[in-house]
Amino acid sequence: MNLCILGSTGSIGRQTLELVEKDPEIRVTALAALQNIDLLTEQIHAFQPEICCVFDEEKAKELKHRLWLESGNGEGQKDKAAFRVPEIVSGMEGLIACAAGPYADTVLVSVVGMIGILPTIEAIKAGKHIAQANKEPIVCAGHIIMPLAKEKGVEFWPVDSEHSAIFQCLQGEKGNAIDKIWLTCSGGPFRGKKRAELENVTLEQTLKHPNWSMGAKITIDSATLVNKGLEVIEAHYLFGVPEEDIIVAVQPGSVVHSMVQFADGAVKAQLGAPDMKVPISYALHRGRRMDYPGKRCLGFKELSEIRFMEPDTETFAGLRLGQEACRKGGTLTTVYNAANEECVAAFRKGKIGFLQIADGIGECMERHRMIADPSVEEIFAAEDEARRFIRERYRLG
Amino acid sequence: MNLCILGSTGSIGRQTLELVEKDPEIRVTALAALQNIDLLTEQIHAFQPEICCVFDEEKAKELKHRLWLESGNGEGQKDKAAFRVPEIVSGMEGLIACAAGPYADTVLVSVVGMIGILPTIEAIKAGKHIAQANKEPIVCAGHIIMPLAKEKGVEFWPVDSEHSAIFQCLQGEKGNAIDKIWLTCSGGPFRGKKRAELENVTLEQTLKHPNWSMGAKITIDSATLVNKGLEVIEAHYLFGVPEEDIIVAVQPGSVVHSMVQFADGAVKAQLGAPDMKVPISYALHRGRRMDYPGKRCLGFKELSEIRFMEPDTETFAGLRLGQEACRKGGTLTTVYNAANEECVAAFRKGKIGFLQIADGIGECMERHRMIADPSVEEIFAAEDEARRFIRERYRLG
Repeated sequence: MNLCILGSTGSIGRQTLELVEKDPEIRVTALAALQNIDLLTEQIHAFQPEICCVFDEEKAKELKHRLWLESGNGEGQKDKAAFRVPEIVSGMEGLIACAAGPYADTVLVSVVGMIGILPTIEAIKAGKHIAQANKEPIVCAGHIIMPLAKEKGVEFWPVDSEHSAIFQCLQGEKGNAIDKIWLTCSGGPFRGKKRAELENVTLEQTLKHPNWSMGAKITIDSATLVNKGLEVIEAHYLFGVPEEDIIVAVQPGSVVHSMVQFADGAVKAQLGAPDMKVPISYALHRGRRMDYPGKRCLGFKELSEIRFMEPDTETFAGLRLGQEACRKGGTLTTVYNAANEECVAAFRKGKIGFLQIADGIGECMERHRMIADPSVEEIFAAEDEARRFIRERYRLG
Repeated sequence: MNLCILGSTGSIGRQTLELVEKDPEIRVTALAALQNIDLLTEQIHAFQPEICCVFDEEKAKELKHRLWLESGNGEGQKDKAAFRVPEIVSGMEGLIACAAGPYADTVLVSVVGMIGILPTIEAIKAGKHIAQANKEPIVCAGHIIMPLAKEKGVEFWPVDSEHSAIFQCLQGEKGNAIDKIWLTCSGGPFRGKKRAELENVTLEQTLKHPNWSMGAKITIDSATLVNKGLEVIEAHYLFGVPEEDIIVAVQPGSVVHSMVQFADGAVKAQLGAPDMKVPISYALHRGRRMDYPGKRCLGFKELSEIRFMEPDTETFAGLRLGQEACRKGGTLTTVYNAANEECVAAFRKGKIGFLQIADGIGECMERHRMIADPSVEEIFAAEDEARRFIRERYRLG
């Protein structure tokens, strides 16, 4: 397999490269990062990709120069071993070149946010198999991406732990319709708290996820339960299940990654230690299960108490709004996501409080005049509108 | 499908007929019962099988006469509607005729005990697909039956809830080796009790299973945990997993029916209400999941507390002895089972106490000179020896 990783310096990207490092079957041919060129440089040395994208144009130039020096073409660097310098590209054009160009047959989309929409679509159009860790393309453009993937005959492997779990439970169930999806949810660091207790929580408290080690954006989304709202929408598009058949269940230990219920009442679940390497490896090896160093297994300790509880959507309005966006569909899922992205950025800068995240999303959704079955252009227009609304609403300048 | 049910008046047999009643795809062509000819007569009227076996010869004669009268051939019975009288057979020969004769393409083996060994083997030899609810053929002759089923290319669907769960979890996992089996266990009515507290428990207390509604023999086996010992051996033969990779886990609610762990540390589980109709239907419909009246689904209540605990094999020696029999194999699994059957019969008659069941099995296993890879004849010889030992040991006459 020739693999392109969009978002190679992020949490999923780094874990993927750790897995792939000693795998003779997988060759990393394309890497893309937002701006962390220090880590990207290390990855280039280790994996020798053919092409690299740095989304930030200035950083891309800096990397180009650095690699030129390192490759032995710069003065005083003759002592460094020469190595093959990859093609360096930048911006959205560069991302798409990595994803859809002739470098890889499989693309792991693990960037954060709506930036992944166009590369995902272009990769599918170019016939690449997709391993999807980036929720937003499905959330905003699932109605475009899923039929396109089917039409192009490409494999679509979810990497999100919950959706991978559902996908694993569906193997061997061809022809058996899904009755219900039980989408599990850790509840985040503020599980059990009420609205009044969340007025003044800090960014630091919000970033302390009880179970999973993930990037900052998704960790904040886990605290507001917006992450679960996005996952409801994702599950809806990935598995063709209406929102009312997707039960969100709080399972504090994150031991049960999700479950599927069938017509006979039987439920299949996938369980495991909270370790993203399992869904990553499962997707990259197309369902072949590989042992890997540092693998964590469940024992009686982890299994001693598994509790499922109904979520508190009163306090955690972020989830309720996501469920509403899922039911109504159209551009509303984009508005839900874009408003959240903008609010989370403001929260990270200390400009708004924790509760204002969901409040802002709610107001933004209420104002929006939804377009059903939107085109990619309409999706981005809805995104712009939502971002502008939040910036004005909270005077973010 | 033309279905033969061996054990049609037992718990599994009755539930199967309830399921099959309105199923246009399944025709019941052969029924076999031990001795309950009242119920069997009803079943004959409802399902009009071609052949029926009553294992007890006297009862078979009685049934024959009754049907002759009912069919309108007897005096004074002319008012009853004529119906097709099935062929009535009896004994082991009759059982085998039902299972291996030209009546059915699929045989549900749901008799109790070692009586199922020969019919299972003969059915497979005749190329019938098997739905196996009867543990003992696998426990005693798994080393013969599993290779034979493979050789004959017949499908082998486990109906035991735990083994069906494991089987369901393995679907879509072709090529992925089993790392561990988590075989769940309710713990029975005496979970948490110590040996001294079990000295004087009565048959009535023993028959009160907390979760499952089953026949008397298996309910007693669930109280001694011999049932779980038998299931460890069954899982070993069905799935080719060594005893040390089969973890018995007490899960008091019987919500998780069993789990499989793979090389990547991922675990798949099958959950559901304790309802044998799910594994029966899954087996008869070859993995197609059917809605059925009275189906029970899990809700937040059932899922509010799932606990897995290590079993107390000190108190419940019946399990420990089963694990030992599984490790050593050969005729020892038969001795374990036959000694238990004999002890349970004595316990039901009030001739021995609850703890003497496992004590008797243990003594019997200790005395036995094991034969590795036994023939069917050697299996039955080991059975005889074990039964004789128990009868003498406890002076059962």
